[in-house]
Amino acid sequence: MEEKEISQAVIGRLPRYFRYLGELKDEGIERVSSQELSDIMQVTASQIRQDLNNFGGFGQQGYGYNVGHLYEEIGKILGLDKEHNLIIIGAGHLGQALFNYMNFERRGFIFRGIFDNNPAVCGQQIRGVTVRPMQEMERFVRENNIDIAVLTIPKTSAVEVAEQLVSYGIKGIWNFAHVDLNVPKGIQVENVHLSDSLMKLSYNLSTHIY
Amino acid sequence: MEEKEISQAVIGRLPRYFRYLGELKDEGIERVSSQELSDIMQVTASQIRQDLNNFGGFGQQGYGYNVGHLYEEIGKILGLDKEHNLIIIGAGHLGQALFNYMNFERRGFIFRGIFDNNPAVCGQQIRGVTVRPMQEMERFVRENNIDIAVLTIPKTSAVEVAEQLVSYGIKGIWNFAHVDLNVPKGIQVENVHLSDSLMKLSYNLSTHIY
Repeated sequence: MEEKEISQAVIGRLPRYFRYLGELKDEGIERVSSQELSDIMQVTASQIRQDLNNFGGFGQQGYGYNVGHLYEEIGKILGLDKEHNLIIIGAGHLGQALFNYMNFERRGFIFRGIFDNNPAVCGQQIRGVTVRPMQEMERFVRENNIDIAVLTIPKTSAVEVAEQLVSYGIKGIWNFAHVDLNVPKGIQVENVHLSDSLMKLSYNLSTHIY
Repeated sequence: MEEKEISQAVIGRLPRYFRYLGELKDEGIERVSSQELSDIMQVTASQIRQDLNNFGGFGQQGYGYNVGHLYEEIGKILGLDKEHNLIIIGAGHLGQALFNYMNFERRGFIFRGIFDNNPAVCGQQIRGVTVRPMQEMERFVRENNIDIAVLTIPKTSAVEVAEQLVSYGIKGIWNFAHVDLNVPKGIQVENVHLSDSLMKLSYNLSTHIY
């Protein structure tokens, strides 16, 4: 895959294409036109064509898209053809929820370990994996080729822990802590700020008249 | 608050302003210039002025912004001056994680109940609240003035449950199910598609050369 500058807006839409194409594939549908995709995804057909043209098209005039092929290609673009080794920092409810969610593993995101700094939690078993103390993070990251860390810890410690993880060689952070992380260039951060999302819902509720 | 058409992009940035202003307020800082805000938020000062101008400005030439006032006004814009009554559908790990997260309550999002269709889970206590069977949803929603439902159930049932909830009078859905919901006009949906977020991280990792 060549490196191109694709806008984050387009990239943000790719997983949704991937999801819909996966569903079509599961239903045994082999081809789909941009108009049909447009109808089920409620996006304009021209938006779909534009988005997919960023990656060289894939569509054929008069035929549409081959579902299986497009699904596979978008998967490759998203890097889903490679395996990622993840650790979760913070074995609270959210950390455990993510650790237990098997669908991520089916996409190649393998949770290798889970860490916590609470001695009462360390040593507990989650899905057959022992919660480790955070002092063991460095060695674990280096020995297990971990490339993604998931932060489900309070914002007070997230900034410091993120810095440590980067120094151990982590390349990506999936951040659930309610704080923006300041990481070196080249380190990828994807934030899930749940409170922000809930406030956005609140705004949209408050400006609507029933 | 007058109703205006504000872009979802601007609205999406408001919670972040609110978060930073809250931190400044907690530190006892009374006023801030758009340049100072720009430095700590890593957004351009002109973006900040533009965003806040959508709501009438709040800034004074040569003074900047009054932190406490701006914090309060953005809170009002976000509807945080009103209380919302929420229920969670799905008492799995994620549902429990959200139910246990007290910071939402401090912002006026009060979790009134939690529901599940698994008989083994119903009757369990979470934070002193009993998990109820989903057959009791309708009565509970109507009797407790519930306006927001949080869906932490599999995608196979999410569409149907969302339709039921809307018919019971729910106005907003915070959707964690991995499916797009089709709701009537006027019903607000905010999606948290965790897999999509993880795939975006994967994409950004795969297109970066270390």
